[in-house]
Amino acid sequence: MAKKDTKKGAEKKRKKPPPDLRELLRVPPGARSELSSFDPRATPGGPGGKAAGLADMARMAERLAGLQERLYAAAAAGDRRRVLLVLQGMDTSGKGGTLKHVVSVFNPAGCRITAFKAPTKQERSHPFLWRIRRALPQAGEIGIFDRSHYEDVLVARVRELVPHRDLGRRYGQINRFEKELADEGVTVVKVFLHISYEEQRDRLLKRLDNPDKHWKFAASDIDDRALWPAYQDAYEVALHRCSTDAAPWYLVPSDRKWYRNWAISALLLEHLEALNPKYPKARFDVEQARKQLLKEA
Amino acid sequence: MAKKDTKKGAEKKRKKPPPDLRELLRVPPGARSELSSFDPRATPGGPGGKAAGLADMARMAERLAGLQERLYAAAAAGDRRRVLLVLQGMDTSGKGGTLKHVVSVFNPAGCRITAFKAPTKQERSHPFLWRIRRALPQAGEIGIFDRSHYEDVLVARVRELVPHRDLGRRYGQINRFEKELADEGVTVVKVFLHISYEEQRDRLLKRLDNPDKHWKFAASDIDDRALWPAYQDAYEVALHRCSTDAAPWYLVPSDRKWYRNWAISALLLEHLEALNPKYPKARFDVEQARKQLLKEA
Repeated sequence: MAKKDTKKGAEKKRKKPPPDLRELLRVPPGARSELSSFDPRATPGGPGGKAAGLADMARMAERLAGLQERLYAAAAAGDRRRVLLVLQGMDTSGKGGTLKHVVSVFNPAGCRITAFKAPTKQERSHPFLWRIRRALPQAGEIGIFDRSHYEDVLVARVRELVPHRDLGRRYGQINRFEKELADEGVTVVKVFLHISYEEQRDRLLKRLDNPDKHWKFAASDIDDRALWPAYQDAYEVALHRCSTDAAPWYLVPSDRKWYRNWAISALLLEHLEALNPKYPKARFDVEQARKQLLKEA
Repeated sequence: MAKKDTKKGAEKKRKKPPPDLRELLRVPPGARSELSSFDPRATPGGPGGKAAGLADMARMAERLAGLQERLYAAAAAGDRRRVLLVLQGMDTSGKGGTLKHVVSVFNPAGCRITAFKAPTKQERSHPFLWRIRRALPQAGEIGIFDRSHYEDVLVARVRELVPHRDLGRRYGQINRFEKELADEGVTVVKVFLHISYEEQRDRLLKRLDNPDKHWKFAASDIDDRALWPAYQDAYEVALHRCSTDAAPWYLVPSDRKWYRNWAISALLLEHLEALNPKYPKARFDVEQARKQLLKEA
Protein backbone atom coordinates (compact mmCIF):
# COMPACT_ATOMS: atom_id res chain seq x y z
CA MET A 1 0.00 0.00 0.00
CA ALA A 2 2.72 2.41 1.02
CA LYS A 3 4.56 1.75 -2.23
CA LYS A 4 1.44 2.32 -4.31
CA ASP A 5 0.79 5.62 -2.60
CA THR A 6 4.32 6.74 -3.31
CA LYS A 7 3.92 5.77 -6.94
CA LYS A 8 0.73 7.78 -7.17
CA GLY A 9 2.48 10.72 -5.62
CA ALA A 10 5.28 10.47 -8.14
CA GLU A 11 2.77 10.28 -10.98
CA LYS A 12 1.10 13.39 -9.68
CA LYS A 13 4.39 15.21 -9.61
CA ARG A 14 5.19 14.13 -13.14
CA LYS A 15 1.81 15.38 -14.37
CA LYS A 16 2.26 18.15 -16.91
CA PRO A 17 1.33 21.63 -15.78
CA PRO A 18 -1.91 22.86 -17.35
CA PRO A 19 -1.32 24.39 -20.77
CA ASP A 20 -1.12 28.16 -20.99
CA LEU A 21 -4.13 28.99 -23.14
CA ARG A 22 -2.80 32.51 -23.52
CA GLU A 23 -0.09 30.99 -25.70
CA LEU A 24 -2.09 28.14 -27.19
CA LEU A 25 -5.05 30.15 -28.46
CA ARG A 26 -3.34 33.41 -29.24
CA VAL A 27 -3.58 34.63 -32.81
CA PRO A 28 -0.03 35.41 -33.94
CA PRO A 29 0.27 38.98 -35.15
CA GLY A 30 1.50 39.82 -38.60
CA ALA A 31 1.33 36.91 -41.03
CA ARG A 32 -2.28 36.21 -41.96
CA SER A 33 -3.41 32.61 -41.83
CA GLU A 34 -6.76 31.35 -43.06
CA LEU A 35 -9.49 30.73 -40.54
CA SER A 36 -10.32 27.54 -42.39
CA SER A 37 -7.00 26.14 -41.20
CA PHE A 38 -8.34 26.12 -37.62
CA ASP A 39 -10.66 23.22 -36.77
CA PRO A 40 -13.78 24.61 -35.02
CA ARG A 41 -14.30 21.22 -33.34
CA ALA A 42 -10.80 21.11 -31.88
CA THR A 43 -10.25 21.30 -28.12
CA PRO A 44 -6.70 22.63 -27.72
CA GLY A 45 -5.45 22.29 -24.16
CA GLY A 46 -8.87 21.01 -23.15
CA PRO A 47 -9.53 18.46 -20.40
CA GLY A 48 -10.33 15.59 -22.75
CA GLY A 49 -14.11 15.58 -22.84
CA LYS A 50 -17.35 17.20 -21.90
CA ALA A 51 -17.71 15.61 -18.46
CA ALA A 52 -14.18 16.56 -17.49
CA GLY A 53 -14.75 20.03 -18.91
CA LEU A 54 -17.84 20.60 -16.79
CA ALA A 55 -16.09 19.31 -13.67
CA ASP A 56 -13.17 21.62 -14.38
CA MET A 57 -15.53 24.57 -14.84
CA ALA A 58 -17.09 23.91 -11.45
CA ARG A 59 -13.63 23.91 -9.90
CA MET A 60 -12.69 27.14 -11.67
CA ALA A 61 -15.91 28.94 -10.67
CA GLU A 62 -14.88 29.50 -7.07
CA ARG A 63 -11.41 30.73 -8.01
CA LEU A 64 -12.84 33.08 -10.62
CA ALA A 65 -15.33 34.53 -8.15
CA GLY A 66 -12.61 34.89 -5.51
CA LEU A 67 -10.26 36.68 -7.87
CA GLN A 68 -13.04 38.98 -9.02
CA GLU A 69 -13.79 39.95 -5.43
CA ARG A 70 -10.12 40.73 -4.83
CA LEU A 71 -9.96 42.80 -8.03
CA TYR A 72 -13.04 44.71 -6.89
CA ALA A 73 -11.71 45.14 -3.36
CA ALA A 74 -8.33 46.37 -4.59
CA ALA A 75 -10.06 49.16 -6.51
CA ALA A 76 -11.40 50.49 -3.20
CA ALA A 77 -7.78 51.23 -2.28
CA GLY A 78 -6.90 52.87 -5.56
CA ASP A 79 -5.88 49.91 -7.74
CA ARG A 80 -6.96 51.00 -11.24
CA ARG A 81 -6.81 47.58 -12.87
CA ARG A 82 -9.77 45.94 -14.54
CA VAL A 83 -10.57 43.36 -17.20
CA LEU A 84 -12.39 43.72 -20.49
CA LEU A 85 -13.63 40.56 -22.20
CA VAL A 86 -14.51 41.19 -25.84
CA LEU A 87 -16.71 38.54 -27.49
CA GLN A 88 -16.94 38.38 -31.26
CA GLY A 89 -18.23 35.69 -33.58
CA MET A 90 -20.81 34.88 -36.22
CA ASP A 91 -24.50 34.50 -35.32
CA THR A 92 -25.09 31.50 -33.04
CA SER A 93 -21.38 31.25 -32.21
CA GLY A 94 -22.22 31.49 -28.51
CA LYS A 95 -21.72 35.03 -27.29
CA GLY A 96 -24.97 34.81 -25.33
CA GLY A 97 -24.16 31.32 -24.09
CA THR A 98 -20.81 32.57 -22.79
CA LEU A 99 -22.57 35.27 -20.80
CA LYS A 100 -25.00 32.74 -19.36
CA HIS A 101 -22.51 29.99 -18.53
CA VAL A 102 -19.17 31.74 -17.97
CA VAL A 103 -19.86 35.29 -16.86
CA SER A 104 -22.58 34.12 -14.47
CA VAL A 105 -19.97 32.79 -12.02
CA PHE A 106 -18.99 36.36 -11.18
CA ASN A 107 -20.74 38.62 -8.72
CA PRO A 108 -23.03 40.60 -11.01
CA ALA A 109 -22.30 43.77 -9.02
CA GLY A 110 -18.76 43.78 -10.40
CA CYS A 111 -19.66 43.13 -14.04
CA ARG A 112 -20.44 45.73 -16.66
CA ILE A 113 -21.99 44.06 -19.67
CA THR A 114 -22.75 45.83 -22.92
CA ALA A 115 -24.32 44.35 -26.03
CA PHE A 116 -23.54 46.50 -29.05
CA LYS A 117 -26.24 46.56 -31.68
CA ALA A 118 -26.26 48.48 -34.94
CA PRO A 119 -25.32 52.02 -33.93
CA THR A 120 -28.12 54.50 -33.28
CA LYS A 121 -28.36 57.79 -35.10
CA GLN A 122 -26.70 59.54 -32.13
CA GLU A 123 -23.89 57.00 -32.06
CA ARG A 124 -23.32 57.35 -35.78
CA SER A 125 -22.85 61.09 -35.37
CA HIS A 126 -19.75 60.38 -33.23
CA PRO A 127 -16.44 58.64 -34.05
CA PHE A 128 -16.91 54.86 -33.91
CA LEU A 129 -15.02 54.47 -30.63
CA TRP A 130 -17.25 56.99 -28.83
CA ARG A 131 -19.88 54.52 -27.68
CA ILE A 132 -17.16 52.02 -26.80
CA ARG A 133 -15.42 54.44 -24.44
CA ARG A 134 -18.69 55.09 -22.64
CA ALA A 135 -19.13 51.39 -21.89
CA LEU A 136 -15.67 50.62 -20.51
CA PRO A 137 -15.33 48.88 -17.14
CA GLN A 138 -14.40 51.01 -14.16
CA ALA A 139 -11.46 50.15 -11.92
CA GLY A 140 -12.04 46.77 -10.27
CA GLU A 141 -14.77 45.72 -12.67
CA ILE A 142 -14.96 43.02 -15.28
CA GLY A 143 -16.39 44.48 -18.46
CA ILE A 144 -17.91 42.26 -21.09
CA PHE A 145 -18.61 43.37 -24.66
CA ASP A 146 -21.08 41.27 -26.61
CA ARG A 147 -19.87 42.52 -30.01
CA SER A 148 -17.67 45.59 -29.93
CA HIS A 149 -15.73 48.17 -31.91
CA TYR A 150 -14.71 45.27 -34.16
CA GLU A 151 -18.12 45.42 -35.79
CA ASP A 152 -16.81 48.65 -37.28
CA VAL A 153 -14.25 46.69 -39.29
CA LEU A 154 -16.41 43.58 -39.78
CA VAL A 155 -19.96 44.39 -40.82
CA ALA A 156 -18.64 47.80 -41.92
CA ARG A 157 -16.23 46.04 -44.30
CA VAL A 158 -18.62 43.35 -45.52
CA ARG A 159 -21.51 45.72 -46.11
CA GLU A 160 -19.23 48.55 -47.27
CA LEU A 161 -20.72 50.97 -44.75
CA VAL A 162 -17.72 53.31 -44.84
CA PRO A 163 -15.30 54.42 -47.55
CA HIS A 164 -12.38 52.02 -48.03
CA ARG A 165 -9.89 54.63 -46.88
CA ASP A 166 -11.69 55.24 -43.56
CA LEU A 167 -11.95 51.51 -42.98
CA GLY A 168 -8.22 51.05 -43.49
CA ARG A 169 -7.51 53.69 -40.87
CA ARG A 170 -9.68 51.99 -38.28
CA TYR A 171 -7.33 49.08 -37.63
CA GLY A 172 -4.62 51.47 -36.49
CA GLN A 173 -7.13 53.48 -34.47
CA ILE A 174 -8.26 50.30 -32.73
CA ASN A 175 -4.69 49.27 -31.94
CA ARG A 176 -3.87 52.68 -30.49
CA PHE A 177 -7.11 52.67 -28.49
CA GLU A 178 -6.42 49.25 -27.03
CA LYS A 179 -2.82 50.16 -26.23
CA GLU A 180 -4.16 53.17 -24.36
CA LEU A 181 -6.50 50.88 -22.42
CA ALA A 182 -3.67 48.53 -21.53
CA ASP A 183 -1.60 51.48 -20.33
CA GLU A 184 -4.48 52.52 -18.10
CA GLY A 185 -4.60 49.11 -16.44
CA VAL A 186 -7.26 47.41 -18.56
CA THR A 187 -6.49 43.77 -19.32
CA VAL A 188 -8.13 43.30 -22.70
CA VAL A 189 -9.11 39.70 -23.50
CA LYS A 190 -10.44 39.47 -27.05
CA VAL A 191 -12.09 36.19 -27.94
CA PHE A 192 -13.17 35.11 -31.40
CA LEU A 193 -15.71 32.29 -31.19
CA HIS A 194 -14.83 30.18 -34.20
CA ILE A 195 -17.67 28.02 -35.55
CA SER A 196 -18.14 26.24 -38.84
CA TYR A 197 -20.68 27.06 -41.53
CA GLU A 198 -22.30 23.66 -40.92
CA GLU A 199 -22.52 24.15 -37.17
CA GLN A 200 -24.26 27.48 -37.70
CA ARG A 201 -26.79 25.77 -39.95
CA ASP A 202 -27.48 23.11 -37.31
CA ARG A 203 -27.91 25.75 -34.60
CA LEU A 204 -30.25 27.83 -36.73
CA LEU A 205 -32.31 24.71 -37.52
CA LYS A 206 -32.51 23.94 -33.80
CA ARG A 207 -33.80 27.43 -33.14
CA LEU A 208 -36.47 26.92 -35.77
CA ASP A 209 -37.53 23.66 -34.10
CA ASN A 210 -38.17 25.38 -30.77
CA PRO A 211 -40.86 28.09 -30.72
CA ASP A 212 -39.33 29.46 -27.49
CA LYS A 213 -36.22 30.30 -29.53
CA HIS A 214 -37.91 31.98 -32.47
CA TRP A 215 -37.36 35.42 -30.96
CA LYS A 216 -33.63 34.88 -31.42
CA PHE A 217 -34.15 34.31 -35.11
CA ALA A 218 -34.39 36.83 -37.91
CA ALA A 219 -35.07 35.88 -41.51
CA SER A 220 -32.00 37.98 -42.34
CA ASP A 221 -29.86 35.44 -40.43
CA ILE A 222 -30.19 33.16 -43.43
CA ASP A 223 -29.45 35.88 -45.98
CA ASP A 224 -26.34 36.68 -43.96
CA ARG A 225 -25.07 33.17 -44.52
CA ALA A 226 -24.54 34.08 -48.15
CA LEU A 227 -21.95 36.56 -46.88
CA TRP A 228 -20.13 33.94 -44.80
CA PRO A 229 -16.91 33.99 -46.89
CA ALA A 230 -16.80 37.79 -46.80
CA TYR A 231 -17.21 37.75 -43.00
CA GLN A 232 -14.51 35.11 -42.56
CA ASP A 233 -12.26 37.27 -44.68
CA ALA A 234 -13.04 40.36 -42.59
CA TYR A 235 -12.33 38.39 -39.39
CA GLU A 236 -9.00 37.17 -40.75
CA VAL A 237 -7.91 40.72 -41.44
CA ALA A 238 -9.11 42.03 -38.06
CA LEU A 239 -7.58 39.16 -36.10
CA HIS A 240 -4.19 39.52 -37.67
CA ARG A 241 -3.99 43.28 -37.86
CA CYS A 242 -5.25 43.74 -34.32
CA SER A 243 -3.65 40.89 -32.39
CA THR A 244 -1.09 43.00 -30.57
CA ASP A 245 1.05 42.52 -27.50
CA ALA A 246 -1.10 45.01 -25.65
CA ALA A 247 -4.33 43.26 -26.62
CA PRO A 248 -3.96 39.89 -28.33
CA TRP A 249 -6.79 38.01 -30.01
CA TYR A 250 -7.62 34.50 -28.86
CA LEU A 251 -9.23 32.08 -31.28
CA VAL A 252 -11.54 29.71 -29.39
CA PRO A 253 -12.87 26.78 -31.41
CA SER A 254 -16.56 26.91 -30.56
CA ASP A 255 -18.41 24.11 -32.32
CA ARG A 256 -18.31 22.29 -28.98
CA LYS A 257 -20.08 24.46 -26.45
CA TRP A 258 -18.50 22.79 -23.45
CA TYR A 259 -15.03 23.51 -24.82
CA ARG A 260 -15.94 27.11 -25.61
CA ASN A 261 -17.16 27.68 -22.05
CA TRP A 262 -14.21 25.87 -20.55
CA ALA A 263 -11.63 27.70 -22.66
CA ILE A 264 -13.02 31.16 -21.97
CA SER A 265 -13.23 30.40 -18.24
CA ALA A 266 -9.64 29.16 -18.27
CA LEU A 267 -8.46 32.19 -20.25
CA LEU A 268 -10.11 34.53 -17.76
CA LEU A 269 -8.63 32.58 -14.88
CA GLU A 270 -5.12 32.80 -16.34
CA HIS A 271 -5.44 36.53 -16.82
CA LEU A 272 -6.88 37.15 -13.36
CA GLU A 273 -4.23 34.98 -11.72
CA ALA A 274 -1.56 36.93 -13.57
CA LEU A 275 -3.06 40.16 -12.24
CA ASN A 276 -3.07 38.61 -8.75
CA PRO A 277 -5.12 41.37 -7.10
CA LYS A 278 -4.84 41.65 -3.32
CA TYR A 279 -7.30 42.60 -0.63
CA PRO A 280 -6.13 46.02 0.46
CA LYS A 281 -4.81 46.56 3.96
CA ALA A 282 -6.96 48.50 6.40
CA ARG A 283 -6.40 52.23 6.25
CA PHE A 284 -7.93 52.78 9.66
CA ASP A 285 -7.09 51.68 13.19
CA VAL A 286 -8.74 48.27 13.45
CA GLU A 287 -8.22 47.96 17.22
CA GLN A 288 -9.59 51.42 17.83
CA ALA A 289 -12.68 50.65 15.74
CA ARG A 290 -13.26 47.38 17.56
CA LYS A 291 -12.97 49.09 20.95
CA GLN A 292 -15.46 51.75 19.95
CA LEU A 293 -18.01 49.17 18.89
CA LEU A 294 -17.57 47.04 22.00
CA LYS A 295 -17.81 50.08 24.25
CA GLU A 296 -21.33 50.76 23.02
CA ALA A 297 -22.82 47.62 24.54
CA MET B 1 -52.17 2.04 0.03
CA ALA B 2 -54.74 3.53 -2.23
CA LYS B 3 -56.48 5.10 0.73
CA LYS B 4 -53.27 6.54 2.08
CA ASP B 5 -52.49 8.12 -1.27
CA THR B 6 -55.90 9.70 -1.41
CA LYS B 7 -55.39 11.07 2.06
CA LYS B 8 -52.08 12.56 1.08
CA GLY B 9 -53.70 14.08 -1.97
CA ALA B 10 -56.41 15.61 0.17
CA GLU B 11 -53.81 16.98 2.56
CA LYS B 12 -52.02 18.54 -0.35
CA LYS B 13 -55.18 20.21 -1.48
CA ARG B 14 -55.86 21.55 1.98
CA LYS B 15 -52.36 23.05 2.13
CA LYS B 16 -52.55 26.80 2.34
CA PRO B 17 -51.47 28.67 -0.78
CA PRO B 18 -48.13 30.43 -0.35
CA PRO B 19 -48.58 33.83 1.26
CA ASP B 20 -48.59 36.84 -1.03
CA LEU B 21 -45.50 38.73 0.12
CA ARG B 22 -46.64 41.70 -1.91
CA GLU B 23 -49.37 42.10 0.70
CA LEU B 24 -47.50 40.81 3.71
CA LEU B 25 -44.41 43.01 3.42
CA ARG B 26 -45.98 46.07 1.86
CA VAL B 27 -45.60 49.32 3.77
CA PRO B 28 -49.09 50.80 4.06
CA PRO B 29 -49.20 54.30 2.64
CA GLY B 30 -50.29 57.29 4.68
CA ALA B 31 -50.24 56.64 8.42
CA ARG B 32 -46.68 56.55 9.67
CA SER B 33 -45.69 53.68 11.92
CA GLU B 34 -42.42 53.37 13.73
CA LEU B 35 -39.74 51.13 12.27
CA SER B 36 -39.06 49.88 15.78
CA SER B 37 -42.46 48.20 15.72
CA PHE B 38 -41.17 45.78 13.05
CA ASP B 39 -39.02 42.93 14.32
CA PRO B 40 -35.87 42.68 12.16
CA ARG B 41 -35.54 39.00 13.10
CA ALA B 42 -39.07 38.12 12.00
CA THR B 43 -39.65 35.85 9.02
CA PRO B 44 -43.14 36.74 7.79
CA GLY B 45 -44.47 34.25 5.27
CA GLY B 46 -41.13 32.44 5.39
CA PRO B 47 -40.63 28.69 5.02
CA GLY B 48 -39.94 28.01 8.69
CA GLY B 49 -36.16 27.93 8.82
CA LYS B 50 -32.85 28.36 7.08
CA ALA B 51 -32.62 24.90 5.51
CA ALA B 52 -36.13 25.14 4.12
CA GLY B 53 -35.36 28.67 2.93
CA LEU B 54 -32.30 27.59 1.00
CA ALA B 55 -34.15 24.66 -0.56
CA ASP B 56 -36.94 27.00 -1.57
CA MET B 57 -34.44 29.43 -3.10
CA ALA B 58 -32.97 26.65 -5.23
CA ARG B 59 -36.47 25.80 -6.45
CA MET B 60 -37.22 29.44 -7.22
CA ALA B 61 -33.94 30.01 -9.10
CA GLU B 62 -35.01 28.15 -12.21
CA ARG B 63 -38.39 29.83 -12.36
CA LEU B 64 -36.80 33.25 -11.89
CA ALA B 65 -34.29 32.62 -14.67
CA GLY B 66 -37.03 31.32 -16.95
CA LEU B 67 -39.26 34.32 -16.35
CA GLN B 68 -36.36 36.67 -16.93
CA GLU B 69 -35.64 35.03 -20.26
CA ARG B 70 -39.28 35.41 -21.29
CA LEU B 71 -39.28 39.07 -20.24
CA TYR B 72 -36.13 39.64 -22.29
CA ALA B 73 -37.50 37.72 -25.26
CA ALA B 74 -40.79 39.62 -25.19
CA ALA B 75 -38.90 42.89 -25.53
CA ALA B 76 -37.54 41.69 -28.86
CA ALA B 77 -41.15 41.79 -30.11
CA GLY B 78 -41.89 45.23 -28.70
CA ASP B 79 -43.02 44.46 -25.14
CA ARG B 80 -41.85 47.51 -23.19
CA ARG B 81 -42.12 45.99 -19.72
CA ARG B 82 -39.21 45.70 -17.33
CA VAL B 83 -38.49 45.43 -13.63
CA LEU B 84 -36.59 47.76 -11.33
CA LEU B 85 -35.47 46.43 -7.96
CA VAL B 86 -34.49 49.23 -5.58
CA LEU B 87 -32.40 48.20 -2.57
CA GLN B 88 -32.13 50.52 0.40
CA GLY B 89 -30.91 49.94 3.92
CA MET B 90 -28.34 50.92 6.50
CA ASP B 91 -24.69 49.89 6.12
CA THR B 92 -24.27 46.10 6.36
CA SER B 93 -28.00 45.54 5.83
CA GLY B 94 -27.21 43.26 2.90
CA LYS B 95 -27.56 45.17 -0.36
CA GLY B 96 -24.36 43.57 -1.64
CA GLY B 97 -25.36 40.16 -0.34
CA THR B 98 -28.67 40.42 -2.19
CA LEU B 99 -26.82 41.09 -5.43
CA LYS B 100 -24.55 38.13 -4.83
CA HIS B 101 -27.16 35.63 -3.72
CA VAL B 102 -30.43 36.73 -5.33
CA VAL B 103 -29.60 38.67 -8.47
CA SER B 104 -26.97 36.09 -9.48
CA VAL B 105 -29.69 33.61 -10.51
CA PHE B 106 -30.51 35.81 -13.48
CA ASN B 107 -28.69 35.83 -16.80
CA PRO B 108 -26.27 38.73 -16.31
CA ALA B 109 -26.89 39.86 -19.90
CA GLY B 110 -30.41 40.94 -18.92
CA CYS B 111 -29.49 42.77 -15.71
CA ARG B 112 -28.54 46.41 -15.41
CA ILE B 113 -27.00 47.04 -12.00
CA THR B 114 -26.10 50.45 -10.68
CA ALA B 115 -24.55 51.29 -7.33
CA PHE B 116 -25.17 54.91 -6.44
CA LYS B 117 -22.42 56.58 -4.45
CA ALA B 118 -22.25 60.14 -3.21
CA PRO B 119 -23.05 62.22 -6.30
CA THR B 120 -20.15 63.52 -8.37
CA LYS B 121 -19.73 67.19 -9.13
CA GLN B 122 -21.33 66.67 -12.54
CA GLU B 123 -24.26 64.82 -10.99
CA ARG B 124 -24.75 67.55 -8.41
CA SER B 125 -25.04 70.11 -11.17
CA HIS B 126 -28.20 68.33 -12.38
CA PRO B 127 -31.57 67.72 -10.69
CA PHE B 128 -31.29 64.74 -8.33
CA LEU B 129 -33.27 62.40 -10.61
CA TRP B 130 -30.95 63.04 -13.57
CA ARG B 131 -28.47 60.28 -12.78
CA ILE B 132 -31.31 57.94 -11.87
CA ARG B 133 -32.98 58.32 -15.27
CA ARG B 134 -29.72 57.48 -17.01
CA ALA B 135 -29.46 54.18 -15.16
CA LEU B 136 -32.98 52.86 -15.76
CA PRO B 137 -33.45 49.36 -17.18
CA GLN B 138 -34.33 49.07 -20.84
CA ALA B 139 -37.35 47.10 -22.05
CA GLY B 140 -36.96 43.43 -21.10
CA GLU B 141 -34.25 44.07 -18.53
CA ILE B 142 -34.16 43.72 -14.78
CA GLY B 143 -32.61 46.83 -13.30
CA ILE B 144 -31.14 46.80 -9.82
CA PHE B 145 -30.32 49.91 -7.84
CA ASP B 146 -27.92 49.49 -4.93
CA ARG B 147 -29.00 52.70 -3.20
CA SER B 148 -31.05 55.07 -5.30
CA HIS B 149 -32.84 58.42 -5.50
CA TYR B 150 -33.96 57.73 -1.93
CA GLU B 151 -30.53 58.75 -0.73
CA ASP B 152 -31.66 62.24 -1.72
CA VAL B 153 -34.27 62.17 1.03
CA LEU B 154 -32.24 60.04 3.46
CA VAL B 155 -28.65 61.17 3.80
CA ALA B 156 -29.77 64.52 2.38
CA ARG B 157 -32.22 64.83 5.29
CA VAL B 158 -29.97 63.51 8.02
CA ARG B 159 -26.96 65.56 6.97
CA GLU B 160 -29.07 68.56 5.97
CA LEU B 161 -27.51 68.68 2.52
CA VAL B 162 -30.41 70.65 1.00
CA PRO B 163 -32.72 73.37 2.28
CA HIS B 164 -35.74 72.00 4.15
CA ARG B 165 -38.13 73.34 1.55
CA ASP B 166 -36.34 71.55 -1.35
CA LEU B 167 -36.25 68.35 0.64
CA GLY B 168 -40.00 68.51 1.26
CA ARG B 169 -40.65 68.85 -2.46
CA ARG B 170 -38.59 65.75 -3.29
CA TYR B 171 -41.09 63.24 -1.91
CA GLY B 172 -43.69 64.43 -4.39
CA GLN B 173 -41.12 64.51 -7.17
CA ILE B 174 -40.18 60.92 -6.41
CA ASN B 175 -43.81 59.81 -6.41
CA ARG B 176 -44.49 61.48 -9.74
CA PHE B 177 -41.29 60.01 -11.20
CA GLU B 178 -42.17 56.50 -10.09
CA LYS B 179 -45.73 56.84 -11.35
CA GLU B 180 -44.30 57.83 -14.69
CA LEU B 181 -42.09 54.74 -14.63
CA ALA B 182 -45.04 52.50 -13.83
CA ASP B 183 -46.98 54.05 -16.69
CA GLU B 184 -44.10 53.25 -19.03
CA GLY B 185 -44.18 49.58 -18.04
CA VAL B 186 -41.57 49.54 -15.29
CA THR B 187 -42.50 47.32 -12.36
CA VAL B 188 -40.82 49.09 -9.45
CA VAL B 189 -40.00 46.83 -6.49
CA LYS B 190 -38.62 48.90 -3.62
CA VAL B 191 -37.11 46.92 -0.79
CA PHE B 192 -36.03 48.32 2.56
CA LEU B 193 -33.63 45.93 4.29
CA HIS B 194 -34.56 46.32 7.93
CA ILE B 195 -31.81 45.45 10.41
CA SER B 196 -31.38 46.21 14.07
CA TYR B 197 -28.77 48.46 15.62
CA GLU B 198 -27.33 45.43 17.40
CA GLU B 199 -27.12 43.36 14.24
CA GLN B 200 -25.22 46.13 12.50
CA ARG B 201 -22.75 46.18 15.37
CA ASP B 202 -22.22 42.42 15.10
CA ARG B 203 -21.71 42.62 11.37
CA LEU B 204 -19.23 45.48 11.67
CA LEU B 205 -17.31 43.53 14.31
CA LYS B 206 -17.20 40.51 11.99
CA ARG B 207 -15.75 42.67 9.24
CA LEU B 208 -13.08 43.85 11.64
CA ASP B 209 -12.20 40.26 12.50
CA ASN B 210 -11.54 39.36 8.86
CA PRO B 211 -8.72 41.26 7.10
CA ASP B 212 -10.25 40.28 3.73
CA LYS B 213 -13.27 42.38 4.68
CA HIS B 214 -11.46 45.49 5.86
CA TRP B 215 -11.88 47.13 2.44
CA LYS B 216 -15.61 47.20 3.09
CA PHE B 217 -15.08 49.15 6.26
CA ALA B 218 -14.67 52.87 6.75
CA ALA B 219 -13.97 54.47 10.11
CA SER B 220 -16.93 56.75 9.34
CA ASP B 221 -19.21 53.68 9.48
CA ILE B 222 -18.94 53.90 13.26
CA ASP B 223 -19.49 57.64 13.42
CA ASP B 224 -22.60 57.08 11.27
CA ARG B 225 -24.03 54.84 13.99
CA ALA B 226 -24.45 57.92 16.14
CA LEU B 227 -26.94 59.09 13.52
CA TRP B 228 -28.92 55.84 13.62
CA PRO B 229 -32.08 57.39 15.10
CA ALA B 230 -32.02 60.21 12.54
CA TYR B 231 -31.66 57.69 9.71
CA GLN B 232 -34.50 55.54 11.06
CA ASP B 233 -36.60 58.65 11.20
CA ALA B 234 -35.71 59.58 7.62
CA TYR B 235 -36.57 56.05 6.48
CA GLU B 236 -39.92 56.16 8.24
CA VAL B 237 -40.84 59.36 6.44
CA ALA B 238 -39.63 58.09 3.05
CA LEU B 239 -41.32 54.72 3.38
CA HIS B 240 -44.66 56.18 4.29
CA ARG B 241 -44.71 59.16 1.97
CA CYS B 242 -43.46 57.14 -1.00
CA SER B 243 -45.23 53.80 -0.63
CA THR B 244 -47.72 54.32 -3.42
CA ASP B 245 -49.96 52.07 -5.49
CA ALA B 246 -47.71 52.65 -8.47
CA ALA B 247 -44.56 51.80 -6.53
CA PRO B 248 -45.03 50.36 -3.05
CA TRP B 249 -42.27 49.91 -0.50
CA TYR B 250 -41.64 46.46 0.93
CA LEU B 251 -40.11 46.13 4.36
CA VAL B 252 -37.96 42.99 4.52
CA PRO B 253 -36.73 42.01 8.00
CA SER B 254 -33.05 41.38 7.32
CA ASP B 255 -31.31 40.33 10.50
CA ARG B 256 -31.54 36.79 9.17
CA LYS B 257 -29.71 36.70 5.88
CA TRP B 258 -31.43 33.55 4.65
CA TYR B 259 -34.83 35.16 5.14
CA ARG B 260 -33.77 38.36 3.40
CA ASN B 261 -32.56 36.41 0.36
CA TRP B 262 -35.62 34.19 0.37
CA ALA B 263 -38.08 37.08 0.72
CA ILE B 264 -36.53 39.19 -2.04
CA SER B 265 -36.42 36.17 -4.35
CA ALA B 266 -40.06 35.42 -3.58
CA LEU B 267 -41.06 39.06 -4.08
CA LEU B 268 -39.36 39.14 -7.46
CA LEU B 269 -40.98 35.85 -8.40
CA GLU B 270 -44.43 37.13 -7.50
CA HIS B 271 -43.92 40.26 -9.56
CA LEU B 272 -42.51 38.41 -12.56
CA GLU B 273 -45.30 35.83 -12.43
CA ALA B 274 -47.85 38.62 -12.34
CA LEU B 275 -46.22 40.13 -15.43
CA ASN B 276 -46.36 36.70 -17.06
CA PRO B 277 -44.20 37.62 -20.07
CA LYS B 278 -44.53 35.38 -23.14
CA TYR B 279 -42.08 34.23 -25.74
CA PRO B 280 -43.09 36.17 -28.83
CA LYS B 281 -44.49 34.37 -31.85
CA ALA B 282 -42.28 34.12 -34.93
CA ARG B 283 -42.63 37.07 -37.25
CA PHE B 284 -41.14 35.19 -40.18
CA ASP B 285 -42.11 32.10 -42.15
CA VAL B 286 -40.63 29.27 -40.09
CA GLU B 287 -41.24 26.60 -42.73
CA GLN B 288 -39.72 28.73 -45.45
CA ALA B 289 -36.63 29.39 -43.31
CA ARG B 290 -36.24 25.68 -42.54
CA LYS B 291 -36.53 24.78 -46.22
CA GLN B 292 -33.88 27.33 -47.16
CA LEU B 293 -31.42 25.96 -44.62
CA LEU B 294 -32.05 22.33 -45.60
CA LYS B 295 -31.72 23.15 -49.31
CA GLU B 296 -28.13 24.30 -48.71
CA ALA B 297 -26.84 20.87 -47.83
